[in-house]
Order: sequence, then C-alpha cells, then structure tokens
Amino acid sequence: MTLSFHPIDWSDGGLTILDQTLLPGEERYVELADLAAMIEAIRSLRVRGAPLIGVAAAMALARDAEAAARDGVLTPERVRDSAERLNASRPTAVNLGWAVTRMLAVADQQFARAADARTVARALREEAQAIWSEDEAMCRSIGEHGAELLPDGSTVMTHCNAGALATGGIGTALAAIYVAHEQGRGIAVLSTETRPLRQGARLTAWELARSGVSVTTLADSAAGAALASGRIQAVITGADRIARNGDVANKVGTYQLAVLAQRHGVPFYVAAPWSTVDLAAADGSAIPIEERAAGELDPAPEAAVWNPAFDVTPAELVTALVTDRGVIRPPLAAGIAAAAG
Amino acid sequence: MTLSFHPIDWSDGGLTILDQTLLPGEERYVELADLAAMIEAIRSLRVRGAPLIGVAAAMALARDAEAAARDGVLTPERVRDSAERLNASRPTAVNLGWAVTRMLAVADQQFARAADARTVARALREEAQAIWSEDEAMCRSIGEHGAELLPDGSTVMTHCNAGALATGGIGTALAAIYVAHEQGRGIAVLSTETRPLRQGARLTAWELARSGVSVTTLADSAAGAALASGRIQAVITGADRIARNGDVANKVGTYQLAVLAQRHGVPFYVAAPWSTVDLAAADGSAIPIEERAAGELDPAPEAAVWNPAFDVTPAELVTALVTDRGVIRPPLAAGIAAAAG
Repeated sequence: MTLSFHPIDWSDGGLTILDQTLLPGEERYVELADLAAMIEAIRSLRVRGAPLIGVAAAMALARDAEAAARDGVLTPERVRDSAERLNASRPTAVNLGWAVTRMLAVADQQFARAADARTVARALREEAQAIWSEDEAMCRSIGEHGAELLPDGSTVMTHCNAGALATGGIGTALAAIYVAHEQGRGIAVLSTETRPLRQGARLTAWELARSGVSVTTLADSAAGAALASGRIQAVITGADRIARNGDVANKVGTYQLAVLAQRHGVPFYVAAPWSTVDLAAADGSAIPIEERAAGELDPAPEAAVWNPAFDVTPAELVTALVTDRGVIRPPLAAGIAAAAG
Repeated sequence: MTLSFHPIDWSDGGLTILDQTLLPGEERYVELADLAAMIEAIRSLRVRGAPLIGVAAAMALARDAEAAARDGVLTPERVRDSAERLNASRPTAVNLGWAVTRMLAVADQQFARAADARTVARALREEAQAIWSEDEAMCRSIGEHGAELLPDGSTVMTHCNAGALATGGIGTALAAIYVAHEQGRGIAVLSTETRPLRQGARLTAWELARSGVSVTTLADSAAGAALASGRIQAVITGADRIARNGDVANKVGTYQLAVLAQRHGVPFYVAAPWSTVDLAAADGSAIPIEERAAGELDPAPEAAVWNPAFDVTPAELVTALVTDRGVIRPPLAAGIAAAAG
C-alpha cells in the first residue's frame, strides 16, 4: 500500500506536513522552517495522532540540530532546550516523550565521544529516520496480521481515526483495511462520525476515500442500526491503552460498539502497537479517563456537560487484539503474558 | 408544572411562536400575522415536533378563518385552500394531516347548516383550542403515569427531544421528568446530543434547564460509558411509531440505548401518545425508515453517507410503554391489544 498523501516528510532542508486541521476540505502541505513552526503545528493539531507526533518530534529535533550545526551553535544545551520545548507542546502525549528521550540519548552519546557538530547532527537525523521507519514497519505488521481476520468482500466498521494520518505508516486499525484492500479483497468501510471532534467523518473518511477504499460515514447513533441490519462483518478500532487483562481504553464510543457487535455476533477487533499494552495496569479500572472541555459539545447555555475522551471496553467483548507481535486471542490475559515474554 | 416558555400561543388577533431555530442561544417569540407566516414557520422548523405541528396548523386555520370572516370572504373554498396549503408544508407529518382533517370536518358541518361567517370562525377557533387542550391533557396523563416509574433522586437518560418544545403540553418522555420534578423528587437528566440535528443538545437541554431541571449533555458515543458507570437509574425516550407487537420506531440511536440499558440492568421506557400505536403494523419490520440528506452529517467530499432518521427497538428491550391510556408492561403485544379494546 503506497499512500498518495504524506502526513509528514523530509523536505529540502526542512520538513513538510499535511495540515490536518484543513481536512477534509483541503489537502495543503506546509513547509516548517524551524522548531518553533513544528511546535506550533503539534499544538494546533496540524500534526496529530500519538505515533505521528513522536515521529514528527524526532524529525524536528534532527532538523534543528542540522541548522544549529550549520550556524556553529550545536551544543548539548541547545539540543536539551529544543527537546524540552517539544515535550511541552503536548504534555500528555506518551509517544512524544518517548521519541524525544530516544533522540536525547543519541545526542548524549555523540557529545560524550566529542563528535563534531556535523557528526552529531547526522546521527540525530539517522535516529529520527529509524524512529519513523520502525513506526512504518509496526503499522505494516499490524496490517498484515489484521488483514487475515477480514473476510473477502466484507464491510468493516471503525471508530475515530486509527489511520495513516495518526502514524508514520498506514495506521493501526486502518492498516488492516489498507492491506486487505491492497490484496484486492473488496473491503468497504463504515466510519462513525466520532463526536465531538469528528475524527471519523473528517479524517478516516478522507484518508480512505483518498486511497480508493469505499467508505461511508454514519452518525455514532446509527451504529446499532447498522449492526442490526446484518451488513457488517467486523468492527475494528485502535486503542489508547490496553491493560494486562486485555481491557481496552480507546476513544469514547468504542465500548458501545463492542456491546452491539457482541449482540449481533460480529467480531470486535482492537489493533494497536504492542507499546500500547500497559503491563502495570491490572485492568481497565487502573486506566485514568481524561475529561475534555465542555465547549467541544457546543452545549446549551445553562446545561452541564459530561465529555469523557475515552471509555473502557472489557476484555470479554474483544474477539482479538491485533499487534505487531501478532494476533492475541482470548483469554487475552494469558495471550498478553505470553507475548510479553 | 407550569412552563415558563410557550412554543405557541394565541396573541391579539394572531399567533405567537417561539422560534426554535434560534434555540438554545436565543429565546425569541415571533408574531405570525397570517397563514403564509405559519407555513413558513413550519417549513423552516421554527415550529417542530409532530404533536405541536398539529396544534399549530389547527390554530393557524382558525385565525385564517377569523380574518376571512372580517373581510367577508369566508367560504368553504377558502378554508379548503388554506388547509391544503398547510398540509403541503410538511407532507409526511401525520399529526398535521390529522388536525387539518378535523378542522375541515367542523367547517363542513358549519357551512352545511348555513352558519354565518362569524359562527363558522368561532367554531373553528373552539375546535383548534380543543385540539390544543387535548394534546396538553395527553401530555399530562403520560407524565403522571411515567413519573411513577422514576425513583426519587434518580438520574434519567433521554435521547432527542420528546419534550414541551415538540407538543402542545409538557411533552411525552420529558413529561414524566417534569411531573417527577414538580413533585420535588430530585430528578436529574442526562441528555444525549442526538446527531446529526442535535435536538438533545439544543432543545432538550434548553427546555429542561429553562424549567429548573438539572440537565447534563453528553455525546451519543458516551451513552455506553454513562450506563456502565452505574449513575443512571432509567432511560426514557419518545416514539415515532409503535407496532402492534410493541416494537418501537424512534430517533436513530434509541435502539443502542435500549441494548446498553438491558446490559446494565437499567429499565428502558418509551413514552408516547396512544395515537402513536399503529395497529396495522404487525412488527417493526413493517415500519418504513426514512433516510435523510447526507449533508446533515457534513461528510468528507468523497465519502458516502448513511443517515437513517429512525431505528427500530425490538419489544423485548422495552421495560414498559407509557401512554395516555396507562403503562403497558410486557408482554407488550397483549398489553397493546387490551388497551386497544
């Protein structure tokens, strides 16, 4: 599957990003001249999706080191300062912190051996490319495992955006769909709108249509009627965090899709990088659920708002976890323990 | 329960309506000078909700007859012509046709006995007032039956707007809440947003807050998490049509609330006028489901859209029907047959 769009890319001396805030109306690529431009892009969600933010931060740190090397100002302090500024752009993004830490380790190692500035910058660029390539390979692996679960000619329901726009590759949940599509197996997708931020209607529908995959948007409320109609053969979503027992925290609304899928005998799959598994969380109750701003729901003036970003789907409703370490089937707790090795 | 707002009212020689398209931001009352103004108001959803449209059409026909009588032009043709124009404003609204037919019967009767124009106009005004009063009494009856089902201090989830803004009285599903509130029983409401047209977030939240009932808006996708949290003691919705076996067609999303309520052991009630029961429909499969315009979901340019307005909740998921003929408990088919008498 070669994507015809590029959420991020190296450009001549800088970086190019697809401005996701303009989707689906406009596909505009923006040249980011320096670190400040990337920080603004992450903060304003022009670049979003946890894995993609990690890749973008690493690439921005590499470009920043190159510029500093050219100007003769590449020092350990400069790299650390840039890293801190990036980290502060989306403080809760786990992959961002992880990628930045990995880049800092490379810089420390190079400075420790008194490498010249050009060598340090080159090592950072290589590390950023490695982070990107590994993310791409992780997506591919999930996609290949997941595609095997989707019957030929099936219609698959998904929620939110666990796609290419959120990763450095072909996505997680959508990776399975892209690989099956690439195999010419006639997959069609039903994409829930995903209120309040509409990632399904704005991003998932856009990237699938852009890639030639048949996609239909429906209101979150219509998911039950769609499953009751018998037209759906599988539901597949991403995950924000997976507990040791297989409980899955993901975009709010995932839980009710899993309940409805079970009622109608439709398999419910969760596709996510192995890094999403949090062995420290015994079950879903250990996963904190972020509540977001009331304004996202555009409420009536005197009404209160309850706007949780995530919900927890109990392991018993998950037909299989699809990870880059393979497909994990129930009992999920045992499968996770085995895969954790 | 005395409402502090008035979706419709007689005014000095005309009619006043609350312009519902401006809610929840603005509570503006508009004077409708003639029949054309009411037709525009119905067509543009300033006045909406099936029972309220029926009441509004009857009141508009009465005012039109009064004006014609003053001008010396009240003829059977004039009344029939006005009735046809009203009927064409929302062709699929059952209550509109029903109310207009009832008004025409009164006009025919008066003209048949060669009543003078003032007498005809007075009879039409009385009939319109009767239609309104009966709707108000129907709401009250549903509310009193329904309130008994809601425990003291309970939190009740509802979907869409089956409230005062949709009827000539205190609503249907919301009537139960208003009556329990009036009894000082500390009822709080969780109102789903109800995409795509947002009747829950715009209208239900507005009218409950305006009436002093504690109301919290949540995304349709968050309903499962709310029910899983254990904070909800009942779900109550309206109905667009009820089949002879108790299957319920209502705003899309109702079905999945019923499935989730059952999973979490929460009673699921449907409140509707007895006139909603369609004895000609053997079960839900006999009820046609309208698909609405794609644009309501603001889709990505190349994505298809599936936008059903309603879904069908099987009778087995309904804890009880609350009607103006009383509460009907399972088996619903037997209860409906008995109430049909």
